[in-house]
Order: sequence, then C-alpha cells, then structure tokens
Amino acid sequence: MMSDQCTSVILQDDDRKLEYTRVDRPQLKPGEVLVEILCCTICGSDLHTFEGTRSTPCPTILGHEMVGRVVDMHPEYQVKDFLERPVELDDRITWSVAVSCKKCEFCKRGLTQKCTRLFKYGHQRLDEQNYLSGGLASHCHLVKGTTIFKVPGSLPDLIASPANCATATVMAAFRLAGDIQEKTVLILGAGMLGVTASAVAHAKNAGTIFVTDIDPERVRRSLEFGARHALLGKKEQPLHQEILHLTEGRGVDLVFDMTGAPDVIESGLQAMAIGGAMILVGSVYPARPVQLSAETIVRRLLRIEGIHNYVDLDLANALNFLERFQNQYPFSRLCEQTFQLSEIKAAFEESANRRSYRVAVLPDQTG
Amino acid sequence: MMSDQCTSVILQDDDRKLEYTRVDRPQLKPGEVLVEILCCTICGSDLHTFEGTRSTPCPTILGHEMVGRVVDMHPEYQVKDFLERPVELDDRITWSVAVSCKKCEFCKRGLTQKCTRLFKYGHQRLDEQNYLSGGLASHCHLVKGTTIFKVPGSLPDLIASPANCATATVMAAFRLAGDIQEKTVLILGAGMLGVTASAVAHAKNAGTIFVTDIDPERVRRSLEFGARHALLGKKEQPLHQEILHLTEGRGVDLVFDMTGAPDVIESGLQAMAIGGAMILVGSVYPARPVQLSAETIVRRLLRIEGIHNYVDLDLANALNFLERFQNQYPFSRLCEQTFQLSEIKAAFEESANRRSYRVAVLPDQTG
Repeated sequence: MMSDQCTSVILQDDDRKLEYTRVDRPQLKPGEVLVEILCCTICGSDLHTFEGTRSTPCPTILGHEMVGRVVDMHPEYQVKDFLERPVELDDRITWSVAVSCKKCEFCKRGLTQKCTRLFKYGHQRLDEQNYLSGGLASHCHLVKGTTIFKVPGSLPDLIASPANCATATVMAAFRLAGDIQEKTVLILGAGMLGVTASAVAHAKNAGTIFVTDIDPERVRRSLEFGARHALLGKKEQPLHQEILHLTEGRGVDLVFDMTGAPDVIESGLQAMAIGGAMILVGSVYPARPVQLSAETIVRRLLRIEGIHNYVDLDLANALNFLERFQNQYPFSRLCEQTFQLSEIKAAFEESANRRSYRVAVLPDQTG
Repeated sequence: MMSDQCTSVILQDDDRKLEYTRVDRPQLKPGEVLVEILCCTICGSDLHTFEGTRSTPCPTILGHEMVGRVVDMHPEYQVKDFLERPVELDDRITWSVAVSCKKCEFCKRGLTQKCTRLFKYGHQRLDEQNYLSGGLASHCHLVKGTTIFKVPGSLPDLIASPANCATATVMAAFRLAGDIQEKTVLILGAGMLGVTASAVAHAKNAGTIFVTDIDPERVRRSLEFGARHALLGKKEQPLHQEILHLTEGRGVDLVFDMTGAPDVIESGLQAMAIGGAMILVGSVYPARPVQLSAETIVRRLLRIEGIHNYVDLDLANALNFLERFQNQYPFSRLCEQTFQLSEIKAAFEESANRRSYRVAVLPDQTG
C-alpha cells in the first residue's frame, strides 16, 4: 500500500538553502497523475540555479530530467500518452518539461515551449495546487495536459532520464538544422549536449564531425560519440584557424553551439562555409554581446538560429534515438555517479565537477 | 541591316573615369546571343563602384539591370529560355545576372549565385572573349548558359529593367522568409528594394507592414506600396521602441534589412517577436560589426539569415510579380529620369540623388 507521505527538496528564495521536507500525498483531480520518481538527473541549469548564477521563481523544487512510475491517477479520467495509448498504473514514463495550452498564439504557431500559460516542471513556484512539480522529490504531481511518453523497456533509467531536457533539446536543434547527410559539422562544447549532438550527427550520416571543448578529457571522450576531430580549445590559436586548416579553407556547413560563450560563437562563425547554418543552444545565461559581420552573413549566405527547449515531437525523437543507439555510443557512461535524495548537497557538488556529464539522484533507500 | 559597331562605357582601373568607346560587333560562338540594350537601370552597387566605395575587377562595363532585344545568334545552336521555349531574333528579354556552371558543389546545393566558375554581367573584367558584358553599352554579349527570360509584353522596359537585380533579390529574400500570410513585417530602408519588399509583402497578404527610412519622402512613398506604418528614422527614439509601442509589446515576425547599417539592424533585432526571422539583404559593403545578444536569439527562438543575389527561379517570380502587380502599386513612378548612354556622367549624378529610386540609361538617339 502506498505511503501517505512524500518527500521533496525545496529551494527557498532567501538563502538558496535546500530544505528536505515531508509533505502529504496530493489528492488528484481528473487528468492528473502521481508519479514515483525513479531517477532525476541534474541538468546544467539546475546547477546554475543552485549556485545562484541563474534565478528562478521560489520556493521551488528543482530537477526536470526524470523518469518515474505511475502510482496514482484519478479514476474518472483516462489519461493517454503522446501516441494516444492509455496510461496505466505501474507504467514507467517520462514527460515534456513544458505543459502548454495548445490554444494561444505561440502554441498555434508550433512554439509550444513559449506558450503564454506555460507550466514547467522543475521551474515552477510551488503553491497549494501543486507542491510537487520538480524532480528532486520522491514524487511528481503531473498536471492535466502533460505530454506523457512511455519509456521503452530496454532503456535504463540512467540513460532515459536526460531525454526530456538534454536529448530532446539536441533533437530540436537538429530539426532546425535540416538535412545533415554528408554535411561537415562543428559542435562547440563537449558536455552532455555536445556529445549527444555528436552521436546524433554521426547516426544521421553527417560528413566530418568536429567537436571542441576546453577540457581535454571531454574532448577525448567525444571521439567515442562519433567525432572525427576532437579539438582542444586553446588561447594561442583561434578555433576557426584550425578548422579552416583542416577543411582546406572550405569551412563547416553546420555549427551547433552548446557553450553560450561569445568568443567561441564568434570563432565558430568564422569557421562557416558558404551556405552554412549555426544553431545556438547554449546561450541561456547573460553574456557580453556577440559581434558579427553582417556583410559576411550576406555574402556567404549564412543562417543563425536559436533554439530554446523543444516541442513534444522532439522528445519522442529523443527516446527513439536513445533506444536505437544506446549501445552504439557509450551513453551508459555519461551518468555514473548516483546519490540518494537525502544526499542532495553532495549530488550538486559532484555535478559541478567537469568529469560528470550527469549526476543522478535516486529515491532514498528506506530499508 | 545591323551596324558593325557597338558602343560601350568602360570603367578603367586607375582614375575611375568612364570612357565612351566604339568597339567591333562580336563574332558569336554557338550558344551565344547578342542583345541590343533597350534600357539599363543603375543599381546602388553600380553607384558605389562609380563613387569608389566598392571595388570591382577593371576594366569593366557596369550595369546589370537591363532589358534588351535579341539581334544576333549563332545559326548552329538553338538557345532556349528558362521555360525551355526557343529564343528568337527580336525577342525582348532579360537574363540572370549570374551565369553558373550547374556542376560545382555550390550549384549542386542550389547556391548557383556562389558558383566557383561564376560569370556575372556588369561585374566582369573585360577580355578578348567578351568585351560587352555590362549594361552600360549599346549591346550585351550573352555567354552560353545564360538563363534567359522573355519579358511579358505588357511590362514596360522601365519597370522590367530592375527585375534581374532588385526585384529578384527581394524575391530571394521572401523565399528565405517563408510563409508571410498575416505575419507582421518590418522593412528597414525604403529605397528600390524596400518599397518592392513592401509591395510583395502586401500582395502576399502579410499582416501589418512597417517601413522605415531616414528620408521623409521615401517614407511617405512607401505607403503607396502597401506599408501601413511609415516610420521616419529619428535619433531621439530608437526604432524598436516605436515598433514595440505600435505592436503593444509583441514585436514583428519578419524583418527585411535593406540598409546594411549596423545601428538599424541592431534596433530591428530588438523589435522582433518570439519566433521571428530577420533577412539581411543590404549588408554588401564594409561596416562595423553588429552586436547582438545570443541569449535573446536563443530564448526568443530567432533566426537571422543573409541573402546575396538570387537563383533563376527568383527572377522568374520577379517578372511574374511585376507583370501581375505593376498597376496595383506605382512601380511606373520609381524610374522617371532617363538619360542617353552618351550622358552617362549625368545619369550617375542623378542616381546619387535620394529622390531617384532608379535612373535609366537608354540607347543613344542617332537620328
């Protein structure tokens, strides 16, 4: 029988302290789902918020990359998943971080992640209606309208958990990029998003894939994810000089920026071939303006496009991709450190370490 | 009977002086066409070259916006137009400024204007093979592979002449922009390209169209080309503040920059709605770098894309558009000053005057 108590780690506004708290199990309304969290991975933006370099409405429960098991639903409402299949008790699921109204101007234009009435797991101010909206808790309370995906049985929790943020965002970036086949690709930044992008580009039969980072170990690891040239960022030689040398002056067709660092973006722009496109992903924190030559953009017919979050279909593609390619690229080695919910401070500390692509928070072992 | 002499205005390298010259009528090779020029309009880039602010390989004959009549073809080769119809003596035609090889990497990717073996009318260094490659001459010598278009009979020379540069470039910009219907559009710069873009947006059922310029008369005239709000650029109030005020904070979906001015582009970027796109057209001269916030591009899902010149289909669309809408918008009033070829200096001087959208150079009247 299910416990009447849930636990959660609440981030309070004032001192950025994390409070480990017991709360009552929520009473569900029609269309709502209660999920027992099996695994929550800590995303870079969680870390930035924890460290105080990113602000979020508080009090809140952080954590939005997660997988859980359905433990309760309102009996009078049949919830369905993205593929219109009934969601049932005990189903292992993940869901879109953003819940959108499907009716506003942005939703109608396919920009559901910019819905004017957005509800966003792991980013929501807690209130009486929903005090379990983040992944750093024993349970998550899914609101009506959440897009739910059943997690393929072959996909372990630790690989599936980043799907609904990191992997889905990479899929959204590739959706914008368009045809990849035989194109030369440059990926700026070899963290979770960068190595995932490298694997996606490789799986989609890109031409040569370049990956760059300032961390030698991350650069080396990217080779296991399809990169042909892993370039260590150096002060002495700008990146574009190295790329132009390696491409015999031609440049690259597609650039994915996962860093958000203006120096890196500017160098990436100078490495682009005629007709090239750069997809900006990493610029989710304040930084100095990027300087670019409009004449170069015109004469070289370049495209620069930003992506923030993703739409439901991107998450469907993310789960399909991970299911199909989890053994071809070492995704299982990207999340090797696990902590219990009660060890949350240690989890965040480990998450700040560059050797960790992802740190996982698992349920407390209650013996 | 046709004269054995042609005339041309040659721009020499050294003193930027224009030389009015008589040359022999060229002997055609198979696939080549000799055209008697009926009208050549002076484009902004011709003017920049004449004024010395833009460099071009010399000696050259400037002028690339033109309409002519076929006066000679090689008897052993059937030349066809864009629609695969035979080209015949006396046909009134225009043609793509750029002749591409259709075989190189760029041609195969649809970027024919960046062909590695490009031949470009009005931009070509004169040589023995072709010493009549520009519009400021009595005749133009079309090389094999030129994409030829018959000019619709209802379209006067003065309206048709800008089709193969200004109008086709605007069509290329709209091709990149994508769906226009009901979108809010901002056009930066109300010269030939700006008012043409305004008319195209209006004809394609855009939502509200904003046009801005620093010239009050040009701003006023844009209202005749479909603009709803004609905004005079002012130092005191940045453009984006005015746009955001007029759109109740929402911003515009599509921006077309025809100015190439960094201040204007930066202000335009700040006027963009979530999911918006900016097409850069005017940045064909050196200018300071544009500064932009990558975070804004990401969080607001913006796209910035450059277009330079156009592909054949854009010119087909340009002629169709002008034929269909020449009476709905006052295109006939954009080119009202005409000069004879022998008056070329006066033509360039008038072209530098802001009241002229286009100045036309017509054949010398030889009585």
